[in-house]
Amino acid sequence: MPDTINLADKLALVHEHWSPHTVAGFNGHDVMVVKVEGAFVWHKHDDTDDLFLVLKGELDIQLRDRTVSLAAGEMFVVPKGVEHRPVARTEAHILLIEPKGTPNTGDAATAVERKVI
Amino acid sequence: MPDTINLADKLALVHEHWSPHTVAGFNGHDVMVVKVEGAFVWHKHDDTDDLFLVLKGELDIQLRDRTVSLAAGEMFVVPKGVEHRPVARTEAHILLIEPKGTPNTGDAATAVERKVI
Repeated sequence: MPDTINLADKLALVHEHWSPHTVAGFNGHDVMVVKVEGAFVWHKHDDTDDLFLVLKGELDIQLRDRTVSLAAGEMFVVPKGVEHRPVARTEAHILLIEPKGTPNTGDAATAVERKVI
Repeated sequence: MPDTINLADKLALVHEHWSPHTVAGFNGHDVMVVKVEGAFVWHKHDDTDDLFLVLKGELDIQLRDRTVSLAAGEMFVVPKGVEHRPVARTEAHILLIEPKGTPNTGDAATAVERKVI
């Protein structure tokens, strides 16, 4: 990978929604960019927190008891084990950090494969 | 801490340079905002990678064999054990992720204490 990672340039290479693309590794984690639109599935990660930073647009992270609303420049960490559902009314661009190999749906059977860009 | 973490609002609370302020926890790491200006010290972290994301301004990360130049929206991960020196010609705002307790200078004797905001 090149030294400087320009997140907008990386996002220009992403053409699907809800498909995390890895742009860097960090302490056993993947640093990923994702384009999202619409509602994802309810899921949780029993072994890891889930870091969301909104780069463009707006994202709601629905929790069972409340909704966390994020705009560009805002972030939230979903604690491990907590059920959540990300929802974007219009396309949003997200920086996501999770351990390598974490299934995006919380379930390896339904997860999409991560691409490296 | 509140749910939504607005990085610009957090940075407005920071009044010193090179003083990382923790805004969230993530898998044993501190997610921090830092205002930087001028040259930091050469240092390395033997046990951890070091994630820099520029939120505002520009940052050079000098390595012994090259310099990685970052503008807003660009990031770089310094691999563990690699000597580096961050330099900002004018004030820059950075998102930084390191394990809790990592000394910012690579040496507990000279490190500044992290504040939580």
